[in-house]
Amino acid sequence: MIRSPDNQKLKTIRKLRDKRWREKLGLFVAEGEDLVEAAERAGWPAEFVLRAEVDVEAELLAAAGTLGSGARVIGVYQRRWGEPGGDVSVWLHAVRDPGNVGTIIRSAHALADGPVILGPGCADPFSPPAVRASMGSLFTRPPARAGLAELAANKLALSSNGGRTLRDVEVEAPVVVCLGAEREGLPAELEHQSVRIAVRSDSLNVAMAATVALYELGIRTLPRGQGPRVRA
Amino acid sequence: MIRSPDNQKLKTIRKLRDKRWREKLGLFVAEGEDLVEAAERAGWPAEFVLRAEVDVEAELLAAAGTLGSGARVIGVYQRRWGEPGGDVSVWLHAVRDPGNVGTIIRSAHALADGPVILGPGCADPFSPPAVRASMGSLFTRPPARAGLAELAANKLALSSNGGRTLRDVEVEAPVVVCLGAEREGLPAELEHQSVRIAVRSDSLNVAMAATVALYELGIRTLPRGQGPRVRA
Repeated sequence: MIRSPDNQKLKTIRKLRDKRWREKLGLFVAEGEDLVEAAERAGWPAEFVLRAEVDVEAELLAAAGTLGSGARVIGVYQRRWGEPGGDVSVWLHAVRDPGNVGTIIRSAHALADGPVILGPGCADPFSPPAVRASMGSLFTRPPARAGLAELAANKLALSSNGGRTLRDVEVEAPVVVCLGAEREGLPAELEHQSVRIAVRSDSLNVAMAATVALYELGIRTLPRGQGPRVRA
Repeated sequence: MIRSPDNQKLKTIRKLRDKRWREKLGLFVAEGEDLVEAAERAGWPAEFVLRAEVDVEAELLAAAGTLGSGARVIGVYQRRWGEPGGDVSVWLHAVRDPGNVGTIIRSAHALADGPVILGPGCADPFSPPAVRASMGSLFTRPPARAGLAELAANKLALSSNGGRTLRDVEVEAPVVVCLGAEREGLPAELEHQSVRIAVRSDSLNVAMAATVALYELGIRTLPRGQGPRVRA
């Protein structure tokens, strides 16, 4: 039983709050039973797992973690990146909010067969709030990294200025939905292939817009029997 | 310039963190320039607004608020409830997370013409995290309150056990989309009219499911010219 905050494992957990340490060590943290179980189910081995009152005093574990409520279990994992692919995936440009990045990883897991691909300027998907927002989908569908020029699939840029609506557009799989941060938008070279979501007011955030787009395009590429084929 | 934490307005702001005080005083707080501007645009008058270094010392205002970063402006408003209505609206059952309630208020503002209707057991939409997650949509489209029996419109219950998919179902407006908390689900009386979202894995949270449903049904009832009419 660990009874000192100077224990090496607790020190590692505390360091991993910091992006530079995550990059240096190639590790990240998952806090809470749900996430540690998701890693197990996905076959993503832990470097180590600490459980309150089994491996470590509960207060020491809570102090090492980032949850307000204090996690009862914390796992440390090696970072792994996925590869672009799938009939439907999503590319993010400068989405700096880790909660949005994690939420979109979760949406893509539910609605698409491809990963979230992180372009320049995105939040670290292995930061504690991003891992938490992904609700374990990060382990099943790890994000990929690529610049716009590296994307081989057809690109569909979501923009509130887009000419056609998402529902109206026909696009051949494989397709990558491209989304930018709410204020900055997307690189200019994507503007000519942009579509909009039919809305009544312009208040969708990037995670909600991604969810709608992954639903709309994901449903068209579901295997027969699992859902309707709108325009296959 | 307010220079004491014992000032009555600062005391009121601190009290309004607490649901009992919000109910007793009939007031709530919006923190940050974006939200205070959203209230102004919506014509929702403030009881008072405090600005850092104009009305109050910045540290005192930050300490009264709930933002980690410390708001530079805080407005206090009277609570107002909306009324059920519109061609497409959403009813929530026991959705206890204030961030989800606020996000769904934002989604409904973007995608539907009706309000979010709160059933029993939902988080207070006037709590600071719910107001923040609504990103000002709360002021334009205040939530309503109603029990299931009071809903006059057609009901469509979203459930992962639903027989038909949302895309396949035809429903006459006005329609209320009913969603429950992720673990508890919906009242049993709604089970026979439940539909599912076509997903590849069961990882959508309630806010994402609501966003997809409001998109799917909202798009069918958009005025001509604003979007496609899939099944009017």
